[in-house]
Amino acid sequence: MEAIKLKELVDQMTVEEKIGQMIQLSSDFYNTTENEITGPMNEMYLTTEKMKTVGSVLGISGANQVKEIQRSHLESSRLGIPLLFMADIVHGYRTIFPIPLGLASSWDPKLVEQTASIAAKEAAVAGLHVTFSPMVDLVRDARWGRVMESTGEDAYLNQQMARAFVRGYQGPNLKEDVTKLAACVKHFAAYGAPIAGREYNTVNMSERQLRENYLPAYKAAIDEGSRLVMTAFNTVDGIPATGNSWLMNEVLRKEMGFDGVLISDWGAIGELIAHGVAENLKEAGTLAFEAGVDIEMMSAAYSSELKGLIESGTLDETKLDTAVLRILELKNDLGLFENPYRGADAQKETQEMFSPQNREVARMSAEQSIVLLKNEHVLPLRNDLKIALIGPNSQTRDLLGSWSWKGDTAETPSLYEGILQHVSTEQLVVIAEADMLDQSADEKLADVDVIVLALGETSEMSGEAASRTSLTLPGNQLELVKAVRRAAKPVVATLFNGRPLDLSAIVEEVDGLVEAWFPGSEGGTALANVLFGAVNPSGKLTMSFPRTIGQVPMYYNQDKTGRPINETNKTEKYLSKYLDVENTPLFPFGFGLSYTKFSYSALNFSHTTFTEEETVTVRVTVKNEGNVTGAEIVQLYVQDEVAKVVRPVKELKNFEKITLEPQAQKEVTFTLTAEALAYVHPDLMFAADNGTFKIMVGSDSENVQSETIRLITKLITK
Amino acid sequence: MEAIKLKELVDQMTVEEKIGQMIQLSSDFYNTTENEITGPMNEMYLTTEKMKTVGSVLGISGANQVKEIQRSHLESSRLGIPLLFMADIVHGYRTIFPIPLGLASSWDPKLVEQTASIAAKEAAVAGLHVTFSPMVDLVRDARWGRVMESTGEDAYLNQQMARAFVRGYQGPNLKEDVTKLAACVKHFAAYGAPIAGREYNTVNMSERQLRENYLPAYKAAIDEGSRLVMTAFNTVDGIPATGNSWLMNEVLRKEMGFDGVLISDWGAIGELIAHGVAENLKEAGTLAFEAGVDIEMMSAAYSSELKGLIESGTLDETKLDTAVLRILELKNDLGLFENPYRGADAQKETQEMFSPQNREVARMSAEQSIVLLKNEHVLPLRNDLKIALIGPNSQTRDLLGSWSWKGDTAETPSLYEGILQHVSTEQLVVIAEADMLDQSADEKLADVDVIVLALGETSEMSGEAASRTSLTLPGNQLELVKAVRRAAKPVVATLFNGRPLDLSAIVEEVDGLVEAWFPGSEGGTALANVLFGAVNPSGKLTMSFPRTIGQVPMYYNQDKTGRPINETNKTEKYLSKYLDVENTPLFPFGFGLSYTKFSYSALNFSHTTFTEEETVTVRVTVKNEGNVTGAEIVQLYVQDEVAKVVRPVKELKNFEKITLEPQAQKEVTFTLTAEALAYVHPDLMFAADNGTFKIMVGSDSENVQSETIRLITKLITK
Repeated sequence: MEAIKLKELVDQMTVEEKIGQMIQLSSDFYNTTENEITGPMNEMYLTTEKMKTVGSVLGISGANQVKEIQRSHLESSRLGIPLLFMADIVHGYRTIFPIPLGLASSWDPKLVEQTASIAAKEAAVAGLHVTFSPMVDLVRDARWGRVMESTGEDAYLNQQMARAFVRGYQGPNLKEDVTKLAACVKHFAAYGAPIAGREYNTVNMSERQLRENYLPAYKAAIDEGSRLVMTAFNTVDGIPATGNSWLMNEVLRKEMGFDGVLISDWGAIGELIAHGVAENLKEAGTLAFEAGVDIEMMSAAYSSELKGLIESGTLDETKLDTAVLRILELKNDLGLFENPYRGADAQKETQEMFSPQNREVARMSAEQSIVLLKNEHVLPLRNDLKIALIGPNSQTRDLLGSWSWKGDTAETPSLYEGILQHVSTEQLVVIAEADMLDQSADEKLADVDVIVLALGETSEMSGEAASRTSLTLPGNQLELVKAVRRAAKPVVATLFNGRPLDLSAIVEEVDGLVEAWFPGSEGGTALANVLFGAVNPSGKLTMSFPRTIGQVPMYYNQDKTGRPINETNKTEKYLSKYLDVENTPLFPFGFGLSYTKFSYSALNFSHTTFTEEETVTVRVTVKNEGNVTGAEIVQLYVQDEVAKVVRPVKELKNFEKITLEPQAQKEVTFTLTAEALAYVHPDLMFAADNGTFKIMVGSDSENVQSETIRLITKLITK
Repeated sequence: MEAIKLKELVDQMTVEEKIGQMIQLSSDFYNTTENEITGPMNEMYLTTEKMKTVGSVLGISGANQVKEIQRSHLESSRLGIPLLFMADIVHGYRTIFPIPLGLASSWDPKLVEQTASIAAKEAAVAGLHVTFSPMVDLVRDARWGRVMESTGEDAYLNQQMARAFVRGYQGPNLKEDVTKLAACVKHFAAYGAPIAGREYNTVNMSERQLRENYLPAYKAAIDEGSRLVMTAFNTVDGIPATGNSWLMNEVLRKEMGFDGVLISDWGAIGELIAHGVAENLKEAGTLAFEAGVDIEMMSAAYSSELKGLIESGTLDETKLDTAVLRILELKNDLGLFENPYRGADAQKETQEMFSPQNREVARMSAEQSIVLLKNEHVLPLRNDLKIALIGPNSQTRDLLGSWSWKGDTAETPSLYEGILQHVSTEQLVVIAEADMLDQSADEKLADVDVIVLALGETSEMSGEAASRTSLTLPGNQLELVKAVRRAAKPVVATLFNGRPLDLSAIVEEVDGLVEAWFPGSEGGTALANVLFGAVNPSGKLTMSFPRTIGQVPMYYNQDKTGRPINETNKTEKYLSKYLDVENTPLFPFGFGLSYTKFSYSALNFSHTTFTEEETVTVRVTVKNEGNVTGAEIVQLYVQDEVAKVVRPVKELKNFEKITLEPQAQKEVTFTLTAEALAYVHPDLMFAADNGTFKIMVGSDSENVQSETIRLITKLITK
């Protein structure tokens, strides 16, 4: 439909029809009998007439059902406006990929794009149009359950991942390519910084901090074309995002230029009452409407109050028209006026869903997301060894992680099943934890060559509303680790989990330590492939692993303090440190081992002085010094030595993942512009100062070599 | 000296003499031989000539020495400008009172004022003029070591305590009353909020948050007349406070109207280099000078760079004159031009120092600061019982806590000595921890009636640069608690410590639990008096005690979330909570038990609707229902039900401490004005909205009864 026609369509709509577009209904209204619908309808202040005007549906999929609902809706819709079908497709639809925190550990935006593309394809044939993804909330506190859904603690990396997800979901031609979904970047803004890591808790930071670290990833997704944005549950400086006019009108719409659909998070408009910024649904609806929230998800403010507010003139109908037009534009962008069923196709659904090709990508992405944390001559395992497999995650298929709606654990190979692809059943003995703890299993370990521990969390321990006050391994896993040491055999601990854990108590007790996250549909296979060396691990952490929960929030790019600790002064008292634990993490941001070793040449700079119009090229040659092929993620960090505000000790500004055959080497080239040296000034402008900058290149955020360069800019003088 | 004369004096001074006033030297320059002074002088870029111009001295006391230094200085000073002598007198000079976190637990500003007055008296006869106290930094994270020096987590209580300290130090007539000191409120601003509780770490919050919670206590001290303000080490939104022109010129000077002396914290000007906002001392000095820092403590920017910067015209000499005039005004306010030796008096020093009267106040203030956390029919102890005293703090005299420079632990009675004032030596057996842990002491417990455990921290575990990542009892104290349970005797655990601890592991293991903080010079006596009922405990916590470190930062006045947990919904999933630990603290703000019980009548309101010109009177009758006299701290909290920004679930707005004889009752009257209902709006204005407010009265922040009142204001309409 032409743009002009959409405006004409809005002109034909009654106020009630317009408001209907701004209402989203859940599956309760469709997957139900005539009788059972009354309750939900009453809660949403809906009548049968109003139901006909509704604009979108949440959490329904399946080609046949979606088509039937759409067909029936179009029959009853006076103006024939199709429904939008939306759902949370976060790391795969039917084929589940690693959780986003795992996917990010691949440091491979192309791979992430591929997984998003497959997720879109599966969801699209099942009739969906919009996914509530990517979540790009920057996270620094592992207590928060939803860190599993984020890509980590770094603004630069999150930007790359945000763009990759959006490209994967939407592709270059959303309208024509019915295998694509519209993306919805979330949660605007700063949902990832709840105080004390407690879900839905207050967020507080300065506007400078918000702009410096938290906004860039949302902006990247929007720049990449994300069609929707979701509001955050939290406050942004005391005002809930969902009713925050400054945040939405000034920052999101004007500054970032977002002209797509803004949707509330689940119930978030109604929650303005609990937050105490609205007395009732009327005030809540008014705040959200004035903030430009186009679609209300699962609360009833728009449904019950908007008509009266518009008719009384309290709210402006032209704003209503703008919101409705945005929603219709989204429908038009998806081609729904021409083809209301879009990609929904029951036959393709059967072919596409959980196809061998898709599972192959699931396996590969899981392999790339695995991070080798420790390896004292124990990995990879030879396939002639006798192995004992012990621990709560030995045979579990609970490997999909949170947000895996249509994933089926029954089809997910466990680690046990994965290992059996490498060794015979005679070589693999599974020992129950209880037997191990009460020593009755000690005998069974006598002829075992290596012990594989399968540790971690259950999937319910992370995700939304799954904050923990402890980061240690749950239950009796620490005792289990100590118990297996009795056998005096090499021990490899593997981890399935959704957040950085405090591994201090086990790292010295094991010879190998492998972080596999919740790895998705092919997780057991992927982890086994890494354990046996079929795949050389190359993932690197995108969140710091603290030594203790007493260090959180923990992140590598901390601001410089006035009393920094370093190698020469560390025994002094009056430094920025703790009495009992050192400042560093147990495993730093960017860290991950390989089955081979990489060496780095000295850095080579094209210039060491440059102006804002110029670029500097930094070259480093990386060599695979071992006998197996491996991939290395080469990282570039910068530090602004003197600035108008205190700057971080280092900030990631570029990275490249390279694969090198044994003894092969490659020159990696990074191009630095003044923009990489820019920051948010006290006046909130983003600019680079002239002055000196430390440029660091290395294999992780701690292991770097550095040189100093000088920027001479014409725009800003110190 | 008349004000006009001070200006004339400035006019007579050379640039070098002016700069000298802005330099402070430590005792290294005086308590030393001619030979040893060269090093410090070089570090400070000083010559013998420049030494003659210096304005103040840090950390020297003793009437004779101070007088001699002053005399010698006046001889060499061309214009006869006396030195100022300053030091950290934080909770007593020679007679040590409880740490401020303990003093605050008395909820008794008059008592706090009395302790500050004695501290001033002792310090003044020893020749001091200025104390670097009070510290009124609001604190919410018990990891930070310096919470011991704060009065807690509440802005209102901190304001009352800030005023009490200033009144006590300065009195109504600083010039005439030579037993008084000039106060220096610190650390401006927000030093109490370092990220992850790590000393000197970055502080980040919005300006609204800064104004709402952090600035009021400094403002209260300034309104009370605090003559000096000290800059904080930390950044305030990215700019170190010590070089933060907005913070100092706009907020401190203009808004708060502070016209006294602004002094840097130790080395803080030099640290602008480490912070990365200055390249060298010249830039650091420039930033601090432009921010209006009048005195540089222990770095060399002013000494080495100011002269050149003034002479080159880079810095404005009129600003230099303003700074010098402020310093001279302070000296004049202290009467030093007329009486350069002021209170220094070797004879009075002998009489006043650690006098019986002062020790009496030390004992009383320690008794009032003790908080009874649990008492299951075990306390008070009868003096005919046989008692076992066990634990690392049984016989320690390390009870003074950090910042007790001139306090002498040798004269500080231990808990053991305190107990012996109530029972005979035959009744008291001390058992070594090692014996208790290896069971060799079990026999000794057979005829014991009650076990007193003396647990806690050492004084080095809190204070400056003493952050901990763990809040549990250090060493083997948890094992010790479990070991004493073998005896199946009643157990009372006592605590000497400087911060809220995680007591979850011991609270169920003991019958009685007594928080004594670091109680000062008479700590052992005071605690024993409470244990034996000579004193009925009445202290209440001014920082929440978390259930686990995984809950920090923890504070009672949290903002309302959109998904609050309550009694009826708490089993639901999607709430603002943790999976593993409930949201509440183990012991809440305002909590403390007594040996008697108090009942509260229903609340009585003079009006339930009022305007901004009116006041509301809230009355409640409190009755002592037991058989011993006791003191109760009656607390009033408010909640703004609907506001422009999300408000806390409750905020302390008044309190009264009353003493009641057995069966006596008293009506407590609180007067509420609109100001108590005001808050910092999104436009940063402090005002009250019309609307409804929950008014809560009770014995602690959780145990309250509430009523709703309505404010109708003419100034702000919603």
